[in-house]
Amino acid sequence: MKLLLKNAQIVNVFTDRLETANVLIDGEKIIGVGEYNDTDADIVRDLSGKIICPGFIDGHIHVESTMLTPPELARVCLPCGTTAIVADPHEIANVCGFSGIVYMLEASEDLPLSVYIMLPSCVPSTPFDETGAVMEAEELRVLYSHPRVLGLGEMMNYPGVLADDPKVMQKISEAHELGKLVNGHAPLLGGRGLDKYIAAGISDDHECSTIDEAVERISKGQHVMIRQGTAAKNLEALLPLFDEPWSRRCILVTDDRHPADLISEGHIDNIIRSAVKAGKSPLTAIRMASLQTAEYFGLKSVGAVAPGYRADLLVLDDLETVKVCDVYCGGRLAVSEGKVIDFKKPEIRSDIRKTVRNSFYLDELSPADFYIESEGSRCRLIKITPGQLLTDEWIAEIDFNRANGIDIKRDILKLAVIERHLNTGHKGIGFISGIGMKKGAIASSVSHDAHNLIVIGTNDEDMAAAANRIRAMGGGNVVVSEGKIIAEMPLPEAGLMSDLSAAEIAAQNEEVRMAVHKLGASAEIEPFMNMAFLSLPVIPSLKMTTLGLVDVNRQRLVSLFEK
Amino acid sequence: MKLLLKNAQIVNVFTDRLETANVLIDGEKIIGVGEYNDTDADIVRDLSGKIICPGFIDGHIHVESTMLTPPELARVCLPCGTTAIVADPHEIANVCGFSGIVYMLEASEDLPLSVYIMLPSCVPSTPFDETGAVMEAEELRVLYSHPRVLGLGEMMNYPGVLADDPKVMQKISEAHELGKLVNGHAPLLGGRGLDKYIAAGISDDHECSTIDEAVERISKGQHVMIRQGTAAKNLEALLPLFDEPWSRRCILVTDDRHPADLISEGHIDNIIRSAVKAGKSPLTAIRMASLQTAEYFGLKSVGAVAPGYRADLLVLDDLETVKVCDVYCGGRLAVSEGKVIDFKKPEIRSDIRKTVRNSFYLDELSPADFYIESEGSRCRLIKITPGQLLTDEWIAEIDFNRANGIDIKRDILKLAVIERHLNTGHKGIGFISGIGMKKGAIASSVSHDAHNLIVIGTNDEDMAAAANRIRAMGGGNVVVSEGKIIAEMPLPEAGLMSDLSAAEIAAQNEEVRMAVHKLGASAEIEPFMNMAFLSLPVIPSLKMTTLGLVDVNRQRLVSLFEK
Repeated sequence: MKLLLKNAQIVNVFTDRLETANVLIDGEKIIGVGEYNDTDADIVRDLSGKIICPGFIDGHIHVESTMLTPPELARVCLPCGTTAIVADPHEIANVCGFSGIVYMLEASEDLPLSVYIMLPSCVPSTPFDETGAVMEAEELRVLYSHPRVLGLGEMMNYPGVLADDPKVMQKISEAHELGKLVNGHAPLLGGRGLDKYIAAGISDDHECSTIDEAVERISKGQHVMIRQGTAAKNLEALLPLFDEPWSRRCILVTDDRHPADLISEGHIDNIIRSAVKAGKSPLTAIRMASLQTAEYFGLKSVGAVAPGYRADLLVLDDLETVKVCDVYCGGRLAVSEGKVIDFKKPEIRSDIRKTVRNSFYLDELSPADFYIESEGSRCRLIKITPGQLLTDEWIAEIDFNRANGIDIKRDILKLAVIERHLNTGHKGIGFISGIGMKKGAIASSVSHDAHNLIVIGTNDEDMAAAANRIRAMGGGNVVVSEGKIIAEMPLPEAGLMSDLSAAEIAAQNEEVRMAVHKLGASAEIEPFMNMAFLSLPVIPSLKMTTLGLVDVNRQRLVSLFEK
Repeated sequence: MKLLLKNAQIVNVFTDRLETANVLIDGEKIIGVGEYNDTDADIVRDLSGKIICPGFIDGHIHVESTMLTPPELARVCLPCGTTAIVADPHEIANVCGFSGIVYMLEASEDLPLSVYIMLPSCVPSTPFDETGAVMEAEELRVLYSHPRVLGLGEMMNYPGVLADDPKVMQKISEAHELGKLVNGHAPLLGGRGLDKYIAAGISDDHECSTIDEAVERISKGQHVMIRQGTAAKNLEALLPLFDEPWSRRCILVTDDRHPADLISEGHIDNIIRSAVKAGKSPLTAIRMASLQTAEYFGLKSVGAVAPGYRADLLVLDDLETVKVCDVYCGGRLAVSEGKVIDFKKPEIRSDIRKTVRNSFYLDELSPADFYIESEGSRCRLIKITPGQLLTDEWIAEIDFNRANGIDIKRDILKLAVIERHLNTGHKGIGFISGIGMKKGAIASSVSHDAHNLIVIGTNDEDMAAAANRIRAMGGGNVVVSEGKIIAEMPLPEAGLMSDLSAAEIAAQNEEVRMAVHKLGASAEIEPFMNMAFLSLPVIPSLKMTTLGLVDVNRQRLVSLFEK
């Protein structure tokens, strides 16, 4: 069955030119671009006045950060013109290990959106992370044979690379031996350290926040991923990279983008649009978002409108707004006039589904589980800074005789991180300042990177109730007040994702967010987002893990009590 | 053992800029580019005033056309700054099949020059070619596992691709399934035919002789190889490709270049030099000859001066003359001040060496073997056009009663092509005009593509003597007069290559050439080069094969006698 798209202008990413030609598609592939006519095809579409360009590719995304399953992500990404993503299922791997990665592969099989996978390189991220799984080279090895696995995901453990850690180097060398890529993640690394990191064969970075960082990386042979996510926005600083000679070594990525942003702003199309608005060439931006990403990842015959290429095509109104009308994925219409054409959700093998849906292994909690046995009165508190993931350490006098140390007036609330993968009973309990809640408690199963159960509360009873609700839901976010659940967002897939749509998730997320603010949380913070990073002991300076407080700068556990 | 190259300017092929930096090398690899100093290294070289650039890569070469074995080719290419070649051993495969390819792999193992191989796709080239081997997909398959085999060589059989010939398509699809490239060769193909050829997954072409041809191919996604060989010179016509947007999709190749040219003009450096002389950027030309070739062929960490890259580096005097002083191959000095540092010739397995060295299977010939039984007097003659490989058909009256039809006054000589691989006794004998020899005979084992024994003579006795001398030498070129050998060039390796040096080969070649002219051959022709193409039935219009005369335009055998 042959399809002719005629009379449109074609974005040629090989020549950075617009050309007038007809496109002939047979099955999944483009078989001709040029002077083809109606008699060559079974179906003919006249696209006069429109522009055809290759589908956009997100070169680095964590699907779990969207809280959407791959099929639901496809539903929200496809109308944005995204026809392929390269996903690092790092979050689910921390919860479910091998099964988590298999889940992501199965959940993305045969979608109109092409989903490629980079294997998570750092599970766990640090020795303080009590995860559901440990993934060494042995665990990763077998997965490389999957045709959609393109390499090893972001190597965040750059100290391990610099120190020639044998387990880290083994993961890298095994990827290379199989001809696979290794993604980078080394913010602010430069000079000799960067040389060593790159010489180890780590070929890109998405953590550049300044043009100098990017230029050094490109000059040393790395590809730079220009990231524009929900929290981390680097586009403005990196706009010069859309010019020569830089653009040839850069691709566009979102990394972490929330569903509300996907709905309101878009996806890769949003980055292109922003670059164009800033005066950059849409032809260059489209090339960076298509051919270059495909070629960088070694995806053959993807990312261009040319003979032999996979017919992943967008029909645009114009190059200024980059408004996507229609999307073809492998020659089939996937989006028509902005509306996704329904597709079948992939079946997940029952054993894998069961593992992912039952990721909590934790006994029911009682208020007593949140009780702190006093060893003194001078305590280390985590202090949140609005708008940042960095935290400060604050030494405060705590009166354990009143509410076991909680002091709502001084904004000293209780924080607990409870191991939830292996029912070890490990937990870290302490205090936090900066949330501002006056009553109730909040809890979540999203707490980077180990995704243990994290709870913040104004009293132990509500904390226990919130924690138990998360446990009962198999994961999610919840807001509790006076023993009652006042808002919740279930995330039953590994405690990270929902199987609802982006719009439903965004609505639930907003509801939960508003509920915390109703309990008095400071308007300056995003309570659940801030909370999700309170247990990540790679961002300074004081964090809480299941093993207790971690002094991030010194990379060691410290006591709650300052003696 | 660490080596520091300091104070040079570095050609950065990622940014098209010259930068001042020191280069630190550890073993085969570059480990740092930047502010390194003497204390970082065991050996320090001060290269003040010099330029360091990545080694040049020839993206398409037939080693056999240089008549040099791979080690001797290395000796002449390395001082030109060539550190890697991608060779298609098409000629030797026509003679020795699988063993011929294995020979080329073994003869190029562990050379300072990196030799990559594309498997010959068309052996034999046409149904009229009686070759020493037939290579179908089955014969090629096992060779892809060799780490230096990068794909399937130039698919000259484009009619086969356009007709979906199952054997052709099987070869292509097997290469693709293994993630390998398929090189193209489709001169003058355009429009729908080109679309189909490209859509079959043939990703480059080196036969572009006009800018329009090149632009169409680049626009449709192919890489264009800008070829500058001994006979085929496309650089001048394709000079605009050194500018944007074209340069990014072009690489530099020689295809076929004779040893005398390699000595006098150079190799890839000669193409760069010519482009620079024509006003093109040396930085662009160097990028096209290094990083782009490596990336196109999927060679990881080759083609740049950057951390992690293989230390294949050139030390240049300047960017105008592109004069190569020193060459490092994998961190080891291979050329010092223009002189090759001696290296060990690879050992060839005895069975393979025996096959290649004994490629003739043919009984001794007598003058009677060249006798033509007359069936009339009007004959089809091949007429040579000076300076071209095209031939004309000339119908002439032949008097078989005098010298069995040879008529030196009218420049009608005898031409014979004798099957020499399987001793079938097949031979084609006829007449040729345009050589101009007044006495003697010449013979060669170089006759494209089947490389049977080809002989041109003024009498049957000298033809037999010349043929028998080629047979006795196991291949080569020979000039005979009055029964005596007056000049010869042995090519004992498959009848195609010598194990002498480039200078020796060039001298022998010149001696043989002059000897034919002394016998009266026209000054306007290159007798051995013209002769080598007289049996190639893909170049119009009349050619001689072991099966007899071929009308190339109609692709069928025709009788010597016009009735």
